[in-house]
Amino acid sequence: MPTLYNRIQGRNLERLAALSDGIFAVAMTLLVLDLHIPSAAQVHSEGDLVSALAALGPQWVAYGMSFLTLGIFWAGQQTQLNHIAEGTRDLTWIHLGFLFSITMMPFSTRLLAEFITYRAVLGIYWLNIFVPGAMLYWSWAYSTAAGLVKSDTHEEIRNSICRRILIAQSLYAAGAALCFISTWLSIVAIVLVQLNYAIAPRLWGRAGHPSTPSARQ
Amino acid sequence: MPTLYNRIQGRNLERLAALSDGIFAVAMTLLVLDLHIPSAAQVHSEGDLVSALAALGPQWVAYGMSFLTLGIFWAGQQTQLNHIAEGTRDLTWIHLGFLFSITMMPFSTRLLAEFITYRAVLGIYWLNIFVPGAMLYWSWAYSTAAGLVKSDTHEEIRNSICRRILIAQSLYAAGAALCFISTWLSIVAIVLVQLNYAIAPRLWGRAGHPSTPSARQ
Amino acid sequence: MPTLYNRIQGRNLERLAALSDGIFAVAMTLLVLDLHIPSAAQVHSEGDLVSALAALGPQWVAYGMSFLTLGIFWAGQQTQLNHIAEGTRDLTWIHLGFLFSITMMPFSTRLLAEFITYRAVLGIYWLNIFVPGAMLYWSWAYSTAAGLVKSDTHEEIRNSICRRILIAQSLYAAGAALCFISTWLSIVAIVLVQLNYAIAPRLWGRAGHPSTPSARQ
Amino acid sequence: MPTLYNRIQGRNLERLAALSDGIFAVAMTLLVLDLHIPSAAQVHSEGDLVSALAALGPQWVAYGMSFLTLGIFWAGQQTQLNHIAEGTRDLTWIHLGFLFSITMMPFSTRLLAEFITYRAVLGIYWLNIFVPGAMLYWSWAYSTAAGLVKSDTHEEIRNSICRRILIAQSLYAAGAALCFISTWLSIVAIVLVQLNYAIAPRLWGRAGHPSTPSARQ
Repeated sequence: MPTLYNRIQGRNLERLAALSDGIFAVAMTLLVLDLHIPSAAQVHSEGDLVSALAALGPQWVAYGMSFLTLGIFWAGQQTQLNHIAEGTRDLTWIHLGFLFSITMMPFSTRLLAEFITYRAVLGIYWLNIFVPGAMLYWSWAYSTAAGLVKSDTHEEIRNSICRRILIAQSLYAAGAALCFISTWLSIVAIVLVQLNYAIAPRLWGRAGHPSTPSARQ
Repeated sequence: MPTLYNRIQGRNLERLAALSDGIFAVAMTLLVLDLHIPSAAQVHSEGDLVSALAALGPQWVAYGMSFLTLGIFWAGQQTQLNHIAEGTRDLTWIHLGFLFSITMMPFSTRLLAEFITYRAVLGIYWLNIFVPGAMLYWSWAYSTAAGLVKSDTHEEIRNSICRRILIAQSLYAAGAALCFISTWLSIVAIVLVQLNYAIAPRLWGRAGHPSTPSARQ
Repeated sequence: MPTLYNRIQGRNLERLAALSDGIFAVAMTLLVLDLHIPSAAQVHSEGDLVSALAALGPQWVAYGMSFLTLGIFWAGQQTQLNHIAEGTRDLTWIHLGFLFSITMMPFSTRLLAEFITYRAVLGIYWLNIFVPGAMLYWSWAYSTAAGLVKSDTHEEIRNSICRRILIAQSLYAAGAALCFISTWLSIVAIVLVQLNYAIAPRLWGRAGHPSTPSARQ
Repeated sequence: MPTLYNRIQGRNLERLAALSDGIFAVAMTLLVLDLHIPSAAQVHSEGDLVSALAALGPQWVAYGMSFLTLGIFWAGQQTQLNHIAEGTRDLTWIHLGFLFSITMMPFSTRLLAEFITYRAVLGIYWLNIFVPGAMLYWSWAYSTAAGLVKSDTHEEIRNSICRRILIAQSLYAAGAALCFISTWLSIVAIVLVQLNYAIAPRLWGRAGHPSTPSARQ
């Protein structure tokens, strides 16, 4: 009866979190590893060096954007797991699927850095934002249905997690669609959406909803 | 008396788990690192790029399969360690042997991606599934014999862990043997066995043995 | 209301610590990965090999210095997080910014190892010391203002954390400024400041403020 | 008064353990990354492939030995940290020094794999066994002197940790000295010493000092 074994597998959410942190840490650090320094043969003066580094511009854009993407998904996964009481084997495999799409990020980033004006590349990069988002949505929908969510999680929080993914992914899709006009425009739009999720709420929050200790409780 | 030292070594299962998560995280992320993007010299249009990416096909198969393999072994090791009460030095070294075989996976995968039609390569890849399986079997047999298993682990669970390894490894061996007909057939068979262990039981479980909260307790 | 979601995100300081440890571990290990061994074609005798390794001199200096830098920032971040009671989404993103600058370190180091006599390179390397320092300062200022610091943290400790960053960064800036005389002089000065923070206080501490068990309590 | 800051730094042994696990995990996985697969141009038949893989022989020896070395030092550090009650800044920096020598291991290993018959290379590899051993000795001597060792650690265990390092390092030094006869002889001797520490005591222990549950308590 293999289902007995399946029932005892994947209970340990801490190890899932540790594996995830490891994969995100490696992926985030590898991004910059692909940034090759100018070769000594090209560089004969301070000026040469500065121009050679400036020529890496599109690569810096790609790497900065990918670090933002990874940071957003890392924070999103963490928020979900904080609200899940215990794991199951199914949840483990949904998250392994999520992590597989995360390990693709250095590949998509290199592709984007090298061929930043190609629409096909932007499509692949967008897929690499869409798939982890879809996996996280599935993870939450599954956890809710299977009764894995911590009992002290308010209805409002349960809904906000799904809603957030749907809104963010709609904005990313709209941004990616702009590549039919220009891939650069598309990248600017995606980065703006990302910055909105990473930074802007902080500024807004400060104005309208102060995150003071009292407000946090 | 060196045996005193040996008795105090390797007690910390948490650090063994952390080292394992780190090694799996690095191995999983490195798989995709080896996927080289097409060189700019080859690519002059969107069409060129799409064909160049399509030509990476066999590599994607190899990487997807290896991620599945790593995920299966990670989940398998986690399940075992969850049922072990405390570590010993012997257990540590059995798991270090297991982890050594895991670090070989990026090498076997690159080999498979490059020489996917060679039987010798399929044999090496199969060894890289067989050896970690054998180490996990040894780990469980040793833990049972040495009385390291948590006392609340039912006899049925103890047996299911060994049985599962034996059945899975028999199926992998049968799949690998198909390489005498065709290496591609062999790969299809191995991937099907893997999907069976990763995904299918979820569907079956849903039908026959619902993994609802009540069933999990 | 996205601010609800923002309020529940980033609470888990343990996962932030785990991600940080992973990124530091990868960055520290990758430094040495870039140290290429001499090619077999160059080496025909023991003497050739020793000279080829000696020629790697500037690279060893760059890698040693970078390991020190990473160690200092790792210890600094750890000290801060030990005194913070709980995380918020803002704190998470400040630390993700900090970690992004940490992932740049292997790049800056390779640049320094290759172009150790260029002032522009020294400026970039200094930026890679300045930015993480500034992020850590921001992190502490924010945590203090937002009431996240553990209540048992003495006023004196709160101030010492900020003061230490300001003094250290002033010394680094002074050291970097010496590059207008000579980049080597500048590197010597930065390493001396680093050694002061890593090692020297130990010697001083032993003389004036013994760190015996009683003093630690 | 910077010593106040120094007194609050480095208390968190868990983060030191996590950083160490990360560095060991990356170093262990990177070893095999350097094992380059044969190029497709060289390989025209199953036979070619098998000979090309067999030609990697010396590299496999170097990688296997380095994995053993890393495993031994990982287990040794873990045993020490398990017996230390709390960290200090000095202990942190001793361990960062230890970890720096660990990050060198992939470099020494590549050097050994490429130039396995050179005495200078064997000397460097031996240094990479000697330095981490010396750092661990220093770590334990310091912890004992500074009163950081857990109070329930028997005198006998305290002594056995130091004695073990001294005996093992003497054997490694003797093995390395054999390189004046032949580097291969030296490698065989070092591997035998390593296997003695990793595996043999298990067999001896089984005969004379059974590690049954009762004996472990």
